[in-house]
Amino acid sequence: MSDDEDRKNAEHKAAMQALKAERDAMMAEKTDAPGLLLVHTGDGKGKSTAAFGMVARALGWNQKIGIVQYIKGKWITGERQFYKRFPESVRYEIMGQGFTWDTQDRARDIEAAEAAWATSLEMLHDPELDLVILDELNIALRYDYLDIAKVVADLQARPRDKHVVVTGRNAKPELIAIADLVTEMTLVKHPFDQGIKAQRGVDF
Amino acid sequence: MSDDEDRKNAEHKAAMQALKAERDAMMAEKTDAPGLLLVHTGDGKGKSTAAFGMVARALGWNQKIGIVQYIKGKWITGERQFYKRFPESVRYEIMGQGFTWDTQDRARDIEAAEAAWATSLEMLHDPELDLVILDELNIALRYDYLDIAKVVADLQARPRDKHVVVTGRNAKPELIAIADLVTEMTLVKHPFDQGIKAQRGVDF
Repeated sequence: MSDDEDRKNAEHKAAMQALKAERDAMMAEKTDAPGLLLVHTGDGKGKSTAAFGMVARALGWNQKIGIVQYIKGKWITGERQFYKRFPESVRYEIMGQGFTWDTQDRARDIEAAEAAWATSLEMLHDPELDLVILDELNIALRYDYLDIAKVVADLQARPRDKHVVVTGRNAKPELIAIADLVTEMTLVKHPFDQGIKAQRGVDF
Repeated sequence: MSDDEDRKNAEHKAAMQALKAERDAMMAEKTDAPGLLLVHTGDGKGKSTAAFGMVARALGWNQKIGIVQYIKGKWITGERQFYKRFPESVRYEIMGQGFTWDTQDRARDIEAAEAAWATSLEMLHDPELDLVILDELNIALRYDYLDIAKVVADLQARPRDKHVVVTGRNAKPELIAIADLVTEMTLVKHPFDQGIKAQRGVDF
């Protein structure tokens, strides 16, 4: 090994030692706090997909999961077809009546959103569940299908025995204010710009 | 129903009709192009998690998936424990030797990264697979454990019969340049800032 390689390796080791010390210190001072409220928002992809990745992760720990889909009612999706295979562990409720631009019926959308919120509340209060995904709830809030003040109050009154993930673009500031972790998915480059159709396995 | 409600509903219907027309036009003019290269990068959460959500989605379509984990070798993760249950459908290879700040050994990291890339190439050329996840490849590239020019050339020479997802912060510009879809996960609010430990089911 050359002197230059030796030096590079030694430098790397020192840098990694410093990084490890920093990380260890950070992990040591944390307190364990269950029951986080997570929000996935932004115009990019991956908001629902990351929530469905958390479902896989939770299943790996033999946890139980509740999923309420607010909007994507009419699509057949891979995630739905997959997680429906685990009815003992996953309660999967599809409450939305399809995209709002398909239904074009505000009264019906409000009714569907209210039924979905009732089911969500039931899950939030179900001590059996370890994780609850409220998929595309943000869209129902954005169109005022649900009262944000009521949703925020209900979320704040929830038992803190499970994690909750809310997805959808345009998360309301009131929701972000009470969330523990907010991630924004931003589009850097998208194949729709380049004339590529939504694809099975990638988009649904 | 009041006049005001009637008006609001009519307005909503018109807006949704316009949205639907726009979306239908967009979907109609797209061409189907298989074999996308997706990159999940940024400092926020959800990069790997969204990739693992795509695995669930692909399993829902009865597809076959290859996963190479470049870095998180030593952690026991929920996703690993879960997807290992489907050996017929998921080839799950854990090549990383743990976080670099744990190993502090550059030569060993390079060796592990090179072995991981060899396995990745095998998967990229495996016609049985529909989706390949190269989890945390960006970290191996960032530390120059792998030559970016070689990785880019290999990716460009790959058969376009499957989707490929590369995850990890600090994606190199050379990789972004050849990607079809790039999403940046940005941290808006994180519980680590508020003294909360990494948690099972959320972070791993």
